[in-house]
Amino acid sequence: MSRCRMVFSGSGGQGVITAAIILAEAAVLWEDLVAVQSQSYGPEARGGATRTDVIISESDIHFPKANEPNVLVCLTQEAYNKFYTIIRPGGLLVTDTRYVKTQRKVDARQVELPLFQRVMEEIGKPIVLNICMLGAVVGLTRVVKPESIRKVLKDRVPPEFFDINARALELGVAMGRDAAS
Amino acid sequence: MSRCRMVFSGSGGQGVITAAIILAEAAVLWEDLVAVQSQSYGPEARGGATRTDVIISESDIHFPKANEPNVLVCLTQEAYNKFYTIIRPGGLLVTDTRYVKTQRKVDARQVELPLFQRVMEEIGKPIVLNICMLGAVVGLTRVVKPESIRKVLKDRVPPEFFDINARALELGVAMGRDAAS
Repeated sequence: MSRCRMVFSGSGGQGVITAAIILAEAAVLWEDLVAVQSQSYGPEARGGATRTDVIISESDIHFPKANEPNVLVCLTQEAYNKFYTIIRPGGLLVTDTRYVKTQRKVDARQVELPLFQRVMEEIGKPIVLNICMLGAVVGLTRVVKPESIRKVLKDRVPPEFFDINARALELGVAMGRDAAS
Repeated sequence: MSRCRMVFSGSGGQGVITAAIILAEAAVLWEDLVAVQSQSYGPEARGGATRTDVIISESDIHFPKANEPNVLVCLTQEAYNKFYTIIRPGGLLVTDTRYVKTQRKVDARQVELPLFQRVMEEIGKPIVLNICMLGAVVGLTRVVKPESIRKVLKDRVPPEFFDINARALELGVAMGRDAAS
């Protein structure tokens, strides 16, 4: 991996910003990588779709916004409608099966995953959807090791919530790896 | 205010990133401004000082990193030592009295505030230091209205923690206004 530009998008409460910060920290603290993570809020932020950018690289990053991401995740239909056009040709577009029902044809690999459904079936807490999504991204792209994410969760998540976060991560990684193979 | 470039710095657990995200959201959701908020993690991130950048503007922002911030907040000595040189000449440098003991002469207005001490005396929960700091920045700079921060807290903070956050905000705003006058 020389450089991975990612955009995670969804609605305000889905925790995509937290997922992006955890990924950036994992890359930097536990793998010898550099990362930039950002939120740009313009008038469109008032619309309801949240966007967060993460760039992970082996070398210095000069511009922090992932204008044409090679990985785009959309966790709501609104986020999909707003952002699907920015995917880099040949990139990877990941959507949640329940939240994104209508997709257009894009020049990218489209992977639909039942993230929300599996989180509810196996963990029962919608709050960890973001970590399951992050696991799926890691499973699909191998941008960092799942263990690096787990270490950041261990440091950041209150002890009583670590277990459900670790399970959501594992679930997502397995789903991502299945879809990658 | 045409453009305000800010850097908040401290140690990992002090919540400076959360404070920056809340400020950016307040500016955009409640005040018709645009904002960019970012974290850059290089090899230095492994050292222990966390840095987060927020730019708030009335018009488009093209480069999201606040290279020469006009407001710099340092909540630890380590963060101070690492970042004090980046302050824009004539800017505002805010430090916490307890955590930053040794300061160099800089071409900026230096404001030392007993944020941690007052939070402990009046609220007793160190976890809201970041919101008190944010209040102080708002009180000093008037970059957004305290009420806009309060509305974001209302939406983001679990109901049982809203009260201590609102009190921390109010305390910080009062300290910032006192120091500004």
